[in-house]
Amino acid sequence: MNPEPTELAAALARFDQLWSPRIVTTVNDYDVRIAKVAGEHVWHAHDHTDEFFLVLDGELRIALRDGTDGAEREVVLPRGAVFVVPRGVEHRPSAPDGASILMFEPSGTSSVGERHDEVPGHVDATTGHRL
Amino acid sequence: MNPEPTELAAALARFDQLWSPRIVTTVNDYDVRIAKVAGEHVWHAHDHTDEFFLVLDGELRIALRDGTDGAEREVVLPRGAVFVVPRGVEHRPSAPDGASILMFEPSGTSSVGERHDEVPGHVDATTGHRL
Repeated sequence: MNPEPTELAAALARFDQLWSPRIVTTVNDYDVRIAKVAGEHVWHAHDHTDEFFLVLDGELRIALRDGTDGAEREVVLPRGAVFVVPRGVEHRPSAPDGASILMFEPSGTSSVGERHDEVPGHVDATTGHRL
Repeated sequence: MNPEPTELAAALARFDQLWSPRIVTTVNDYDVRIAKVAGEHVWHAHDHTDEFFLVLDGELRIALRDGTDGAEREVVLPRGAVFVVPRGVEHRPSAPDGASILMFEPSGTSSVGERHDEVPGHVDATTGHRL
């Protein structure tokens, strides 16, 4: 826990890697993570936790298989929008034009969940890196 | 949990009361709350949880008694800055020129903690209201 405030814009300027979350701070046993994203992540699900998204810059899309019989839909988050993916729901974030996002989830949560499609090379399967 | 994204600017436009947090969404057993603030809150402490702040607009100040023998200091959070007040630390948020903030904390957490000075009339002692 940092004894001084962290400016998110400065924190984002400290790394370039896409789909590779950095842990900005912790709240009890939860992480606050930030990531730069562009293109598509991978279909995955977190079986034991909800996952919170806040868009800091750009536009994030999240495809969800939460319909009857797993029917797909997509939600669109402009800058300043928040959304929670409920535990167990298969989802795939994407950002055709790039985005910066903030996430809130229990420490140790994998970026690709417990169930996922084959992880492509551009996606970092991680529990978050130090900033 | 809302099945659609929530734009924080629109959510903030739905209420005017100061120091009266609204619950935007939940993440497991945590709330994501937003509040409009101006002037001073009250000195208080949360004995059982850390408290996360993100400044959405304006500037937030947080006075802290976290020094040796409870010595006071103040941190200043511009727009886009985050800070975590560790559990047990007496603190008093303020915003001389007004601010909008987002908080993460366990559902049921009181806005004035377990220990607090006398709560002034302009501060809402609440576990958060529905948006």
